[in-house]
Amino acid sequence: MDAPAMPPLGFHSLFDFHACDVARLADREVVRAALLDAVREAGGTVVAEMFHQFEPHGVSGVVVIAESHLTVHTWPERAFAAVDLFTCSPTLEHGRVEASLVRALGAGRVERSRHERG
Amino acid sequence: MDAPAMPPLGFHSLFDFHACDVARLADREVVRAALLDAVREAGGTVVAEMFHQFEPHGVSGVVVIAESHLTVHTWPERAFAAVDLFTCSPTLEHGRVEASLVRALGAGRVERSRHERG
Repeated sequence: MDAPAMPPLGFHSLFDFHACDVARLADREVVRAALLDAVREAGGTVVAEMFHQFEPHGVSGVVVIAESHLTVHTWPERAFAAVDLFTCSPTLEHGRVEASLVRALGAGRVERSRHERG
Repeated sequence: MDAPAMPPLGFHSLFDFHACDVARLADREVVRAALLDAVREAGGTVVAEMFHQFEPHGVSGVVVIAESHLTVHTWPERAFAAVDLFTCSPTLEHGRVEASLVRALGAGRVERSRHERG
């Protein structure tokens, strides 16, 4: 007989934010504040963070959280930001992170998918 | 008439590495070398990196690459590592990164999924 299946270790959400505010996507400090605020609003714990401004434009950023991670890559020329959120805590709600980022980036449309990990 | 669809900006792979070498998953420097080597073997360009050792065990790490990012979270107690690779370059082959990590982490089984972004 097989052992009972283990519950997933975590959940991974991929968020595509379309029709965003272009000026915000181009500004590393705005993008950085958006991610850190989203983690805090959802009750996450920031362990480390790193944001990189690309030339001629675009920002890549990562927040390592005690619950796993949140990353962003922005394409201001497409008004687009790709975000992924991986958590191994049942208490950090992905919907709260999404809602916070929609407001902060001025997103007009979001595509999302959610995946079990582990 | 609708405008023609834009091609995806990037591809995002989620890799679940099971039945890994437990000692390797517990060692930050081994995990760090595994990710950096995997990026280099696939021809990626490292922009920044950050690896964090959790207590009592487990490593979280992120490599920001010019082509986007590679992250890892390890659970030595489950012989498991969750990896995600996001690239906006057609030349960086996800299969090469996966193969390199399988060797470096001693993974016995891999589950993968691949998603268009943007």
